[in-house]
Amino acid sequence: MNDLTIELRQDNGKHLYEQIYLHIRREIRKGKLLQGEKLPSTRSLAEFLQVSRSTVELAYDQLLSEGYIEAKPYKGYFVCPAEGLLDMGEGMPAEDGWKSWKSVEMEKKEGYGTYGMYGSGKAYDYDFSPNTIDMSAFPYATWKKITKGILVDANSEIFLSGSPKGDFILRETIARYLHTSRGVNCRPEQIIIGAGNDYLLMLLEKILGRHVKIAMENPTYRRAYRIFDSFAYRISPIAMDGSGMSAKGLRESEADVAYVMPSHQYPTGIVMPIGRRMELLKWAGEKEGRYLIEDDYDSEFRFKGKPVPSLQASDREGKVIYIGTFSKSIAPAIRIGYMVLPPPLLKIYEEKCSFYSTTVSRIDQRILNEFIGKGYFERHLNRMRRIYREKHDMVLNGLKGMEKDFAVSGENAGLHILLQNRRGRSEENLVGAAAEAGVRVYGLSEFCVGEMAPQWKRDAVVLGYASLGKEQIAEGMERLESVWGR
Amino acid sequence: MNDLTIELRQDNGKHLYEQIYLHIRREIRKGKLLQGEKLPSTRSLAEFLQVSRSTVELAYDQLLSEGYIEAKPYKGYFVCPAEGLLDMGEGMPAEDGWKSWKSVEMEKKEGYGTYGMYGSGKAYDYDFSPNTIDMSAFPYATWKKITKGILVDANSEIFLSGSPKGDFILRETIARYLHTSRGVNCRPEQIIIGAGNDYLLMLLEKILGRHVKIAMENPTYRRAYRIFDSFAYRISPIAMDGSGMSAKGLRESEADVAYVMPSHQYPTGIVMPIGRRMELLKWAGEKEGRYLIEDDYDSEFRFKGKPVPSLQASDREGKVIYIGTFSKSIAPAIRIGYMVLPPPLLKIYEEKCSFYSTTVSRIDQRILNEFIGKGYFERHLNRMRRIYREKHDMVLNGLKGMEKDFAVSGENAGLHILLQNRRGRSEENLVGAAAEAGVRVYGLSEFCVGEMAPQWKRDAVVLGYASLGKEQIAEGMERLESVWGR
Repeated sequence: MNDLTIELRQDNGKHLYEQIYLHIRREIRKGKLLQGEKLPSTRSLAEFLQVSRSTVELAYDQLLSEGYIEAKPYKGYFVCPAEGLLDMGEGMPAEDGWKSWKSVEMEKKEGYGTYGMYGSGKAYDYDFSPNTIDMSAFPYATWKKITKGILVDANSEIFLSGSPKGDFILRETIARYLHTSRGVNCRPEQIIIGAGNDYLLMLLEKILGRHVKIAMENPTYRRAYRIFDSFAYRISPIAMDGSGMSAKGLRESEADVAYVMPSHQYPTGIVMPIGRRMELLKWAGEKEGRYLIEDDYDSEFRFKGKPVPSLQASDREGKVIYIGTFSKSIAPAIRIGYMVLPPPLLKIYEEKCSFYSTTVSRIDQRILNEFIGKGYFERHLNRMRRIYREKHDMVLNGLKGMEKDFAVSGENAGLHILLQNRRGRSEENLVGAAAEAGVRVYGLSEFCVGEMAPQWKRDAVVLGYASLGKEQIAEGMERLESVWGR
Repeated sequence: MNDLTIELRQDNGKHLYEQIYLHIRREIRKGKLLQGEKLPSTRSLAEFLQVSRSTVELAYDQLLSEGYIEAKPYKGYFVCPAEGLLDMGEGMPAEDGWKSWKSVEMEKKEGYGTYGMYGSGKAYDYDFSPNTIDMSAFPYATWKKITKGILVDANSEIFLSGSPKGDFILRETIARYLHTSRGVNCRPEQIIIGAGNDYLLMLLEKILGRHVKIAMENPTYRRAYRIFDSFAYRISPIAMDGSGMSAKGLRESEADVAYVMPSHQYPTGIVMPIGRRMELLKWAGEKEGRYLIEDDYDSEFRFKGKPVPSLQASDREGKVIYIGTFSKSIAPAIRIGYMVLPPPLLKIYEEKCSFYSTTVSRIDQRILNEFIGKGYFERHLNRMRRIYREKHDMVLNGLKGMEKDFAVSGENAGLHILLQNRRGRSEENLVGAAAEAGVRVYGLSEFCVGEMAPQWKRDAVVLGYASLGKEQIAEGMERLESVWGR
């Protein structure tokens, strides 16, 4: 217990749970807590530190989700193996960089409606699609106000063509946002703003060249698969294990580039632990031309603890291409994404691709810049996080009667969860039974490319809840229980 | 003269010059006026028809610019050779389709400023860049009003992801606009809206495949050249003759696809005559997989006669890929272009590429749709045409003292002209002398890819005038005369 003598302070602006989390993380990084070492139980540490048990639980949750520790059933919490962890140094984001994510009390409470934007599928009453968002609480009035302010005659230069990379002012704002929220280390010069993920990947093809062998997690985001397939890239699906893309599988694939979603894998929801991240970075560092594409598609929505830092934050050798979009956090329609290029690829871009005109309207860039820069984005995210958390909790609540039958994963973040049936009931059977009850759920095999990895038997389904109203979720879950709980 | 007995009417809503133009065109198409046949002089036809001479001149100008007739110095007007012309049938746009282009009296006169948006180059007082536009008369207030109307809560569905091709409503509007203004024959289904020309060409690469040999006019639009080059397309520069891309050169190149600007070639300003158009279409029709990319980049601005119809309007076999943008006609910043795919390529797009998300914000699509649909675009174009015509006339006026020394071409349309020195003065000498006088002009060789065709000696310069104010043009032309007129 010696290592855990934590001097907790009420006056340094940090939550107690945050101080506990930071202390333990520091001890692990310094090597004072060794791999495999057992941590005290939440109860005993809470007593020892004279804090509430939930405070310790929050700190442990954060360490768990970042892969510093692992939980073994009936045994307790243990320090994870972490190849390369001790060398990371300032590769980790600055501790105070996270401040902006502290829960901010909303200035104005706004009600939110319940209409599912994509409607339910044809024959379905409730569609648990993992690929929707809730626009009912979008601050349309704010967006309109900003737009109005931007479209004044004095601003007429924004109607002229701008930088191919996007306006510098927006790139600065995004660089700041990515640093504080995701630990991404980059200069605005490294950022390219583009009209969505698909376009940015098309541009990346021009940078990486066309003879690329790409490794993808399996299961994965099928749209990305189809895009790489359309590039005629050779694609190696790599089985996911419980920590993400298998480093061994990646090595054996002889891929040049790996496409990963380390913060909340789609669709499994797995958070890649630090150890695995280090293994992948090590793989990339071993050979020139190897890169990791980090698609950080929904990291804004995390319900437990603080956000898991990006893989890019740990990258010391310029091996990570970081891609994100405002499609989930603002609106799919605005078509604005960003790509952070590591220096070697930035050089290629400047030499070979910088003549491609920007794909995003400068007016829209300026609107987005104000939306983020003036704090509206943060407020919107906090509001959405609360809304999504409520929906998320309702889904978990609805699962209570089926707890014995299903293992839940990916439930701390994002807008969907994964349910794995413990009794060997097949995906087809689960999806079919749900459909008969008017509920649409998605079989995991829909997300697979090539053969499914052995640990993903055909016994799992994905449930998204973003666009469903609370009553719809409650009713949908009841119906699922009626057909799955039998 | 028998063929030219034209029954002119005052009551059918058509201008006299239009009736003359339509009559002669019909006679040529029917074969009643044969290739090489001489037309009456404008003076004698005017006397014969009892109309003013300028009315006949307008009609002849239109026939000239569309390639039905040609003017031979000191000899008169002759009917052009036109391979395949008689078979065109309804391939030509409907005559009444052009109505929307009649000069519309502006509802409100707006002053326009003189500030050159791109400023002058570093050391230059006046930059005659061919690649700018004048935004000083842009109807910002209208754009703002439309935007405000679009961004109402009731429209919240426009914040959700839309069709990969772009919203149907905008594609309908664009189809209608292209039909009436450019004679383009297409259904909205054939239109893909994308974030500018560069993106649309990237998408086209996915459709055409990557093993394409592409023929380009030489000189040409260098941005397109660099884009095709970045695709690793094999590029065959084909010498331009006075009618555009040489059909013989195209044949010999063994290219699969040709990229052409038939309505106002960049930078030569040459309008491809009907005969050459037919030759190119014939070439494309001879083999599966052959296509013509028609980049109709500045056809909105035509100062004499009615717009030259698009090449697509004459395409009966689905061989033309028509590309255009609102960058010159509205604003470069809005990043909206369109591509019309012929049916065989549309099929490939649907099968292989329709999963790429749209690159244009739905909000922007809706704003543009209203801007066009409610007549603001037409009014804006008419206003801009007047402004550009005034500037254009000032440039020609400024050339009067140098008439003997320079041949002017491309002067009936677009936002730049080409000057060819008659006394063998070199491009370098012309550009250098201008620079010493603080004026920037552009040597034709800057637009060349590969070797320059023999008829384009290094004795020509390009002058654009869109973003210069009238006083700047006057002063700039005076300075040019002082160094070129010596």
